[in-house]
Amino acid sequence: MFPPILRKISLFLQRLPGIGEKTANRLSFFLLRLPENDLKTFGQNLIDLKQKIKLCQKCFNLSEEDLCPICADKNRNQKTIIVVETVLDLLAFEQGKIYQGVYHVLHGKIDPLNRITADDLKIKELIDRLKNEEVEEVIIATSPDMEGEATAVYIKEKIEKEVFPQKKIKISRLVYGLPIGANLEYADYLTLKKALEGRREL
Amino acid sequence: MFPPILRKISLFLQRLPGIGEKTANRLSFFLLRLPENDLKTFGQNLIDLKQKIKLCQKCFNLSEEDLCPICADKNRNQKTIIVVETVLDLLAFEQGKIYQGVYHVLHGKIDPLNRITADDLKIKELIDRLKNEEVEEVIIATSPDMEGEATAVYIKEKIEKEVFPQKKIKISRLVYGLPIGANLEYADYLTLKKALEGRREL
Repeated sequence: MFPPILRKISLFLQRLPGIGEKTANRLSFFLLRLPENDLKTFGQNLIDLKQKIKLCQKCFNLSEEDLCPICADKNRNQKTIIVVETVLDLLAFEQGKIYQGVYHVLHGKIDPLNRITADDLKIKELIDRLKNEEVEEVIIATSPDMEGEATAVYIKEKIEKEVFPQKKIKISRLVYGLPIGANLEYADYLTLKKALEGRREL
Repeated sequence: MFPPILRKISLFLQRLPGIGEKTANRLSFFLLRLPENDLKTFGQNLIDLKQKIKLCQKCFNLSEEDLCPICADKNRNQKTIIVVETVLDLLAFEQGKIYQGVYHVLHGKIDPLNRITADDLKIKELIDRLKNEEVEEVIIATSPDMEGEATAVYIKEKIEKEVFPQKKIKISRLVYGLPIGANLEYADYLTLKKALEGRREL
């Protein structure tokens, strides 16, 4: 008995994680009470979203430009790279403003059960970066679970094999403070700060 | 460090009830992974929402037409009217398919503390309906709290004063099963069914 357009909005909202039918209905009604201009702006942003967002050519962060704001920032230390699984992990570091280097986003972790191999990740691109850029340290911040650890080891060996003959780079891994099995993006930034300070060489 | 368009989407989502910053960020990323066509359809629906939705001229349910689908349905018993506070309350009845009559949506309840008086509600319109339509029973389903009860009593007295001289109508009130202080829209439909069956005359 929802008017069709409101039902469509509610059904769409029900596809979002953590939103069931009743919540979606309530949110639809809430949307209906918002100022029309706000709805129009939001609707237009959704329409434009996929066209505007691309991946940074250097670190594969999300970006509207060829280079993301972090890679384009001359004030950041481009010689230290934190390797993360996802853009949300990158954001967790950025929210704390605890780190002044740059990133490399893998877009996943090696996960044989889900058929995600090293080739599906931006690992080759990381190796190319290390070969071509002036980098002093790579901090591997994949998640502290089995797949994340395996990905870290894989990347470390790959760097040793393909980059080290050419030049030495410090490789480290986040350790202190991260609870095993936890999801990096949910960590508070103080925990992340500790993990960053207590990193050990691989 | 969010791309601007994604940050705008996240900020908008944070205005919705129950959605904080982290949830909004996660939802934004989820949206980014959805098919572009689905996003475009949803965005367009949001843009059109306020223009398409109006109130049913008869019962003040939300509708895209002059008459809502319930009032326009010849198979429904137009002689029994359930009076509800909100469209969400109406939906709670409809989801259970336990009722074949029609509705009247007040759009609120008498609430002096929040300066909502009888004149702010669709009570006058209800009285007009009762005067002009052929109605046998009015079931007052305002919420079982102080304001809801006061609204029920007010409506009952108004009907007795303005409609009864002209014609008699049965007036009843939902009772059985509704926990005091609860919100009608959260009730499961079996509880609502009981409350409907056990209604008492006012």
